[in-house]
Amino acid sequence: MATTRERIHEIIFEADTRAGKAFDIALLVAIILSVVIVMLESVRSLDARFAEEFDTLEWVFTGLFTLEYLLRIYVTNKPLKYIFSFYGIIDLLSIVPSYIGLFVGGAESLLVIRSLRLLRIFRVLKLTRYVGESNQLISALIASRRKILVFLFAVLAVTIIMGTAMYLIEGRKNGFDSIPHSIYWAIVTLTTVGYGDISPHTWAGQLLASIIMILGYGIIAVPTGIVTSEMTKKHNTSNTKVCQNCNEDYHLDEAKYCHHCGKRL
Amino acid sequence: MATTRERIHEIIFEADTRAGKAFDIALLVAIILSVVIVMLESVRSLDARFAEEFDTLEWVFTGLFTLEYLLRIYVTNKPLKYIFSFYGIIDLLSIVPSYIGLFVGGAESLLVIRSLRLLRIFRVLKLTRYVGESNQLISALIASRRKILVFLFAVLAVTIIMGTAMYLIEGRKNGFDSIPHSIYWAIVTLTTVGYGDISPHTWAGQLLASIIMILGYGIIAVPTGIVTSEMTKKHNTSNTKVCQNCNEDYHLDEAKYCHHCGKRL
Amino acid sequence: MATTRERIHEIIFEADTRAGKAFDIALLVAIILSVVIVMLESVRSLDARFAEEFDTLEWVFTGLFTLEYLLRIYVTNKPLKYIFSFYGIIDLLSIVPSYIGLFVGGAESLLVIRSLRLLRIFRVLKLTRYVGESNQLISALIASRRKILVFLFAVLAVTIIMGTAMYLIEGRKNGFDSIPHSIYWAIVTLTTVGYGDISPHTWAGQLLASIIMILGYGIIAVPTGIVTSEMTKKHNTSNTKVCQNCNEDYHLDEAKYCHHCGKRL
Amino acid sequence: MATTRERIHEIIFEADTRAGKAFDIALLVAIILSVVIVMLESVRSLDARFAEEFDTLEWVFTGLFTLEYLLRIYVTNKPLKYIFSFYGIIDLLSIVPSYIGLFVGGAESLLVIRSLRLLRIFRVLKLTRYVGESNQLISALIASRRKILVFLFAVLAVTIIMGTAMYLIEGRKNGFDSIPHSIYWAIVTLTTVGYGDISPHTWAGQLLASIIMILGYGIIAVPTGIVTSEMTKKHNTSNTKVCQNCNEDYHLDEAKYCHHCGKRL
Repeated sequence: MATTRERIHEIIFEADTRAGKAFDIALLVAIILSVVIVMLESVRSLDARFAEEFDTLEWVFTGLFTLEYLLRIYVTNKPLKYIFSFYGIIDLLSIVPSYIGLFVGGAESLLVIRSLRLLRIFRVLKLTRYVGESNQLISALIASRRKILVFLFAVLAVTIIMGTAMYLIEGRKNGFDSIPHSIYWAIVTLTTVGYGDISPHTWAGQLLASIIMILGYGIIAVPTGIVTSEMTKKHNTSNTKVCQNCNEDYHLDEAKYCHHCGKRL
Repeated sequence: MATTRERIHEIIFEADTRAGKAFDIALLVAIILSVVIVMLESVRSLDARFAEEFDTLEWVFTGLFTLEYLLRIYVTNKPLKYIFSFYGIIDLLSIVPSYIGLFVGGAESLLVIRSLRLLRIFRVLKLTRYVGESNQLISALIASRRKILVFLFAVLAVTIIMGTAMYLIEGRKNGFDSIPHSIYWAIVTLTTVGYGDISPHTWAGQLLASIIMILGYGIIAVPTGIVTSEMTKKHNTSNTKVCQNCNEDYHLDEAKYCHHCGKRL
Repeated sequence: MATTRERIHEIIFEADTRAGKAFDIALLVAIILSVVIVMLESVRSLDARFAEEFDTLEWVFTGLFTLEYLLRIYVTNKPLKYIFSFYGIIDLLSIVPSYIGLFVGGAESLLVIRSLRLLRIFRVLKLTRYVGESNQLISALIASRRKILVFLFAVLAVTIIMGTAMYLIEGRKNGFDSIPHSIYWAIVTLTTVGYGDISPHTWAGQLLASIIMILGYGIIAVPTGIVTSEMTKKHNTSNTKVCQNCNEDYHLDEAKYCHHCGKRL
Repeated sequence: MATTRERIHEIIFEADTRAGKAFDIALLVAIILSVVIVMLESVRSLDARFAEEFDTLEWVFTGLFTLEYLLRIYVTNKPLKYIFSFYGIIDLLSIVPSYIGLFVGGAESLLVIRSLRLLRIFRVLKLTRYVGESNQLISALIASRRKILVFLFAVLAVTIIMGTAMYLIEGRKNGFDSIPHSIYWAIVTLTTVGYGDISPHTWAGQLLASIIMILGYGIIAVPTGIVTSEMTKKHNTSNTKVCQNCNEDYHLDEAKYCHHCGKRL
């Protein structure tokens, strides 16, 4: 019995063996299909025609995911650790709404939580060499997190001040009916989205809006500059030199000696 | 006879001789004109006034392109290879709708396929030195294709999760009438396009929308960083010169002498 | 007495001691809360329900800020210097509207000036190492200020000329009802905001608009290029280490040994 | 007399002397004022109230500019060269409409040509060190002109093909009433402007639109990458090393020998 349990554990939790990989991909396909069904179910015209089919498929996937959830608890040595892990909670949340829906109406809409299971895709991607690329992207973002935070704070400060000013200038009659709403408008404008659901009507408002737009058009250069500069720095040291003396692995391409301990590379 | 066939082949298929180049440019002009006519024909007011002229010109171009197509089949040694090549299929598709239109109404709208023939412009451009530039652009894009895929996947994941959340928050009464529609809205917002055909009305929706906008405003830095870093890397290492005296391998493209030791490269 | 005064001075004006830091953060929370209340007060539905509570809190914060203002004047050795400093004026402006509001209606809307006090956040941030990051951002912006000015001037010139041209092409019947309004439209378009409150209706106008859009889409590369190039330069030369042995002057920030000759820096 | 003429020439045409500089700035102020007046005149409400004042000022400026134009012809040694120069033609065009307006109505609207005279600002700016900055920007743009052209062509090709596809998918009933109009919409979308005057209504249209948006959001990285990479290249050689042997002035910062002739720098 233990062998079966171990084998199931290997298939479900590992991703390096052939069976584990196949299971992960099959699971991913099932998740994508179930998410697509939840999506299509939300389209009124489709729901009217295929209500029954959606319902059946819904229960098939709920059954499969419940089975998978129970199996995961059964085969793991530390069930509590899995249950309260990030994926464990998402796995549970993705099946619970269906059962709640039996007793309470409207709970089906919570099924969209299931889309969070799509995050499992990253586990499958881990198998591929895409991981190196996404690691590079993520490490560039992490390395510049403080600069990005300062930038975000500056953006928030600008939108709060500008939004408040627009509330005073344009006022309720032109759609700027509260300060939070005006700040929302300022964000819409600064990020160059520009829905146009609210737009300035007075010349002073249009002047201020123009300033916000040019500001937004210009300061988009800042996050771009941050990330680009971080990425350029990265690939400046895209070599694989490692100092044999101190294990330092970050060297300039033209380095001949370790900058950390002075030994020849 | 063979000589004539060979000469036609040279004119039609080659682009390096004077006659071949002239033919390519004449063909390009004909394609552009025929595309412009298809376009103008779609404008109702113009079609009402010049219906006859458009029809005549349409048949003139169809005749010319049919002649060209038959000639291409005639002069090439491997007609089947041409017929089933990418350009061969496009060439056929660009004349067929006119003939179908004789029997079935509405087929003329398929003539817009003809605009795909504009791709031939790349063949003409090949003659010029623009090709080096576009090669650089394309190789920068190819070199960063994996990073771009990871980025695109992240964008999709964000828009699916955000779109679903907006569907739950705003609901049908505010225009977010299905999950796919809400995802469409999320893409419109994240890419900072912002049509404004759907926009959030509740404060929670506007708060989430603000987050999506700032996110979109910020992460545009990622593709920019990827391409820029790739391009900077390109022109920094666009040659493989290495000084035989001092092994310095970082040289300007036009360098004749090593900038480090002064020896001739 | 002097000791008490000195201790209050330390708490209020310094930010390096534990008490000073605690005071700064408490003040920041109070400012944020008071700004949030001013914002919520501007939402009609909330104001109708919680008018009294808002009023009470408003006076509590006004009282606190008045006390803080008087204390600041009391403990500082050069009261006039503080009163006429940037923060001194903002501190005063943030309490005056409440008192004016007792006599004149409508003055409360000026309370939004209080949001300027949020700038104090930078003082608290100064404590953290975020300052280094924002300094880098600011110095990159300062270093490229002239390029940015030239760019802004070019943007203004383009929008004035394009806006005027659109006024002539589209005219009053299509919403372009004056040259300043058309320039506003040109800015909305060039910065890719695109509200859609005014949009071209004639084919000539749509052609010109297309040109402006592609222009705006392209020249966003200019501020981005400026800032990125400045930032890349920054971190490439962010130290002044020069090897005394071989004069190599390009070192990583954390380098202890010259990567070129291996000598200690 | 010749001396007076020479002195006027110096004042009007030169910009290095104190008087010349003062004249240039005064002229610039006059141009800006006259442009502002033309702008304000186009605002209906202002025109109704200040019609007479605008008229008077209009003639004052026309008089001044006429005088300046005649003086320029008088003092220059080669009047024809000036008259047919770029600035000469603009100077003439900026006064002619006022005179035509005496006989024909509506010609005043042509006065907006006067805004082109604003380009003179570059002459004044030349005095300052801003010229170096704008030269850098311009040379970066010129150096990447071919890449930018290839990019623009690709953008055009994408918008033509996508616009045509949308015309077929959405059709006249959803606002895509002709191919040129659909191409206009594709440009509005690809550049992330997004007016929202036309937007897709079918699911297929929204899917294609999503693809165009993500494409536009991504390929904005290309011009940015081009310009940034050009600018970074520039400042990589921001030193002022000039080879004394062959006058080559483009060297890497760390260069010790001229890469062109091999002499020590």
